[in-house]
Amino acid sequence: MKSKSSEARFLFTSSEQSADAYYLTGVFIPDPFLSGVIRGRSFAVVNRLEYRRVKKYSKLDSVFLLETVQLEAAKLHKIEIKSVGPAELIYYILSKYKLSKSLEVPASFPAVHYSRLQLLGVKITICGDPFFRQRAIKCDEEALAIRLANAASASGIRAAEKVLRMASIDGKLLKYKGRTLTSESLRLVIEKACLHKGAVANNTIVACGVQACDPHEIGFGPLRANELIIIDVFPRLRKSGYHGDMTRTFLKGVANDAQRAMVNAVRDAQLAALKQIKADVSGSTVHKAASNVFSERGFITERRGDSFIGFIHSTGHGLGLDIHEYPRISTSSDRLRIGHVITVEPGLYYPDIGACRIEDVTRVTAKGGELLSSMHYRWCFR
Amino acid sequence: MKSKSSEARFLFTSSEQSADAYYLTGVFIPDPFLSGVIRGRSFAVVNRLEYRRVKKYSKLDSVFLLETVQLEAAKLHKIEIKSVGPAELIYYILSKYKLSKSLEVPASFPAVHYSRLQLLGVKITICGDPFFRQRAIKCDEEALAIRLANAASASGIRAAEKVLRMASIDGKLLKYKGRTLTSESLRLVIEKACLHKGAVANNTIVACGVQACDPHEIGFGPLRANELIIIDVFPRLRKSGYHGDMTRTFLKGVANDAQRAMVNAVRDAQLAALKQIKADVSGSTVHKAASNVFSERGFITERRGDSFIGFIHSTGHGLGLDIHEYPRISTSSDRLRIGHVITVEPGLYYPDIGACRIEDVTRVTAKGGELLSSMHYRWCFR
Repeated sequence: MKSKSSEARFLFTSSEQSADAYYLTGVFIPDPFLSGVIRGRSFAVVNRLEYRRVKKYSKLDSVFLLETVQLEAAKLHKIEIKSVGPAELIYYILSKYKLSKSLEVPASFPAVHYSRLQLLGVKITICGDPFFRQRAIKCDEEALAIRLANAASASGIRAAEKVLRMASIDGKLLKYKGRTLTSESLRLVIEKACLHKGAVANNTIVACGVQACDPHEIGFGPLRANELIIIDVFPRLRKSGYHGDMTRTFLKGVANDAQRAMVNAVRDAQLAALKQIKADVSGSTVHKAASNVFSERGFITERRGDSFIGFIHSTGHGLGLDIHEYPRISTSSDRLRIGHVITVEPGLYYPDIGACRIEDVTRVTAKGGELLSSMHYRWCFR
Repeated sequence: MKSKSSEARFLFTSSEQSADAYYLTGVFIPDPFLSGVIRGRSFAVVNRLEYRRVKKYSKLDSVFLLETVQLEAAKLHKIEIKSVGPAELIYYILSKYKLSKSLEVPASFPAVHYSRLQLLGVKITICGDPFFRQRAIKCDEEALAIRLANAASASGIRAAEKVLRMASIDGKLLKYKGRTLTSESLRLVIEKACLHKGAVANNTIVACGVQACDPHEIGFGPLRANELIIIDVFPRLRKSGYHGDMTRTFLKGVANDAQRAMVNAVRDAQLAALKQIKADVSGSTVHKAASNVFSERGFITERRGDSFIGFIHSTGHGLGLDIHEYPRISTSSDRLRIGHVITVEPGLYYPDIGACRIEDVTRVTAKGGELLSSMHYRWCFR
């Protein structure tokens, strides 16, 4: 499947915020800048703070100096330089390359420049995510980068596990080096371990007991014995920009039957989902494999007042330069393709028992999936 | 100056990416969601993964469950639930609150939803940055948060300084604990120190010699004796979301006259700029105070081939929930107002000498500026 592309495609965003802009340029630029592809050749327009660096290190075909292009655009539009915005720059580039006044922009293109281009009479097609469709298909080099990022995740989780194992139980609390062990202190251990692997982790989840029943609660305060603790680590490699994303659930102390049944169900759901994964299988088939394990074992999913309990999220999502990207593995989703890299992370959330999520990352192949994350699944220790 | 506000203002973005969305909600939500202000009351529409957490911890007046609002919007539009996007949600909310079909969105509002709203016949006003103008005026609590974030920056810079002081000089290289000291290893020391202060630092600059002449080059490889090393640390506090932003320039070994003259000029330019700062002064006056020091001392700014040399950037920028925000302190900029928090960071960049930048943060008061960052200015040690 080859996507038909316009002759001119433009982005206006920072490559720290936009995975598409980083994919195109290969360099991190902190402030928004104009970039794109014209007749198959990539370019960016950057200011003098970035120019030499971007010329030297980017993978772009052409790098233009903003101050020069602004001057030329001002002449064309017969306006002052300070009135030249991204829309005027784009219009100027279309003129310079004798392109028809039509172009493509990403869904996230800023409305302010979109509306200005409309006023300039440019015909604009807004594309779906990702702007560069190829971004969903990971080559070997990208898969290796994601593997390295997951090694950083695993390093963080292992560091946390080690602390949990060495901690002592003091009533309901955990003590480590004379202090009460908290979500915050364990997060620090994890994120330092990630830094040592060249990856920056942010919002690492270390959530215990009922806190973990809100899947995006990062966790705070004392960790408690005999309760499930979700640890979800999704660092970004500084060098390549790729993310890892791994989750393990631990329990320090003694697990009860409900906790055991839940953890076993989540791991079995993950295995059932992983078993389905190969090219041409629908993401919904994968999701259904996981949810079937839960419903067969009586783990129901429903709303109770303000709470949602059970398997309340999708089975997974694409992973790459963005932490959440195409494709989604949920009730309705597209067919998997060779090279898709996805997380497989079923979970169960019951405020009266606690929460469990187990997450690994796999790359879709013709015959199955190639795991890009690796760590054991032992979860309960005294 | 009171800004006239529309009855209905909408954002569709993640509060991790958008400072405006975080300012409004007070909670970090990783995926894009609808939020805004209707007749002066704030709200957000979040999915079931976020609902309970956001209801509990956000500062919003109202939190709505996405799944419920989607259902109601689908009925209004007579479409399937899966066809309800942000534009349909917004249209539904306008109808429900009997608002005229007009609204305000930020400049960065996604084009895809903007164009859909146009098709639905909604009149849209696109606002300038920041969407919430009040965000530029920092109250005491915000100033304290920025002070804490700068304490994290300072802690990182001090940790780096300590390593540089303890390092030994081995020819042109620096040795620490038996290894060659690099940008990477010093960055690790800094970012770990920031984590200990509850702040996540990313892309910390540790750039030596000619590398530092590209202001956004984060630096790599061995640090060298007798060369200027720029260290620029801009972490974000995990709890409050506010940034610190501090820079110091060090030299390990012996400085030559050109390096000394440059560092002295930069510090004097910073002092000259700081002296100008008070309410009602134009940002350009502040910038001019710094550039005058440089031109008086013969430090010229110009283009040389692909390089720009001299004082090649602005004097500073607003600092808050965004690392670069309104106002800018450059050749053309607005008048400072009480409560503006700005960086003051003149710098000089000459590939044959090296680069120097010194940066602190100040809050504008009626009579001057209140420094929100603190660290000594000693820079040269053997």
